[in-house]
Amino acid sequence: MVGRALSAKLRELGHDVVVGSRSAGDDSRPFEEAAAHGELIVNATNGEYALDALAQAGEDNLRGKVLVDVTNPLDFSRGRPPTLSVCNDDSLGERIQRAHPEARVVKTLNTVNANVMVDPSLVGGPHDIFVSGDDAEAKAAAVELLESFGWPREHILDLGDISTARGPEMYLALWLRLFGVAGTPNFNIRLARG
Amino acid sequence: MVGRALSAKLRELGHDVVVGSRSAGDDSRPFEEAAAHGELIVNATNGEYALDALAQAGEDNLRGKVLVDVTNPLDFSRGRPPTLSVCNDDSLGERIQRAHPEARVVKTLNTVNANVMVDPSLVGGPHDIFVSGDDAEAKAAAVELLESFGWPREHILDLGDISTARGPEMYLALWLRLFGVAGTPNFNIRLARG
Repeated sequence: MVGRALSAKLRELGHDVVVGSRSAGDDSRPFEEAAAHGELIVNATNGEYALDALAQAGEDNLRGKVLVDVTNPLDFSRGRPPTLSVCNDDSLGERIQRAHPEARVVKTLNTVNANVMVDPSLVGGPHDIFVSGDDAEAKAAAVELLESFGWPREHILDLGDISTARGPEMYLALWLRLFGVAGTPNFNIRLARG
Repeated sequence: MVGRALSAKLRELGHDVVVGSRSAGDDSRPFEEAAAHGELIVNATNGEYALDALAQAGEDNLRGKVLVDVTNPLDFSRGRPPTLSVCNDDSLGERIQRAHPEARVVKTLNTVNANVMVDPSLVGGPHDIFVSGDDAEAKAAAVELLESFGWPREHILDLGDISTARGPEMYLALWLRLFGVAGTPNFNIRLARG
């Protein structure tokens, strides 16, 4: 769902998109081919399979590229609500960066649902999105992408290096409950300051 | 710091407050005595010692009472930023409720700093606070307390039972990074919805 929303938006913006999937078909290609095609890679796989999918993409096809990671490490194996398969002293964003040290990983967008990712105006009033990553140029490229999706620059908050992805990933536990309060998946949070 | 801020505010509001501490002195009493005194108990201990402190308070002094838990299970043993000593499939709020099944635990206020807890107007614009607990009457009492601190009822969000305390507790990982972005400890988040 996230991959479909993002690829549709990217095409609408004029990008030449190749979607990768495990079961390549009419509208998708093997991960390796998709990754080879992309100048910028968006990882919108199921968090559980993210590392596998990127291993299939192949180091040669990720090297030096901006790798925008929008996944959440959700673990439904113990029922609902899901827990996280990694958290607290590590994050999926960090694991991906460690697995692919030559890719330039930027964690972002994982704190909102697929529709809001590509159309922040679905949520009333100002609200914020986060970026985490070690590479400043890669973060700038991700910020540019977010702006093209409609995120105002002043509401794109740079949390710091890739280890700060723990924050937005662990926020998922609160997101699940705010979903209940909001009564719609089209919600987000805003930083209010003194 | 949290205990001082809360006790000062409670006294300002006319409550008869006894503060408990490990080292009882001029301005505090042993946990057991403080808990025996209170009709409503506020647990503002260091998260690391919360279960010990409440064990010292004693089951007889907690039974049937509203126990407002504002703690965070921060673990500084591996340096900064802190990790959580419990998260993902459990929370400190739940541990306290399990340890004291006859107390009526309400998790709240742990998502803002001590000053904001008792003076939400320190943060500009509307922003939200959360309550989690199994007992509806106890949550209503906590909501009333929050309102007396200045939290507007429409910005007090009931997340559900005590297991939902995982959300606000795990949010701490994001709070630590938003602190860096906000440049002041007087900040909070607001739910923005469609």
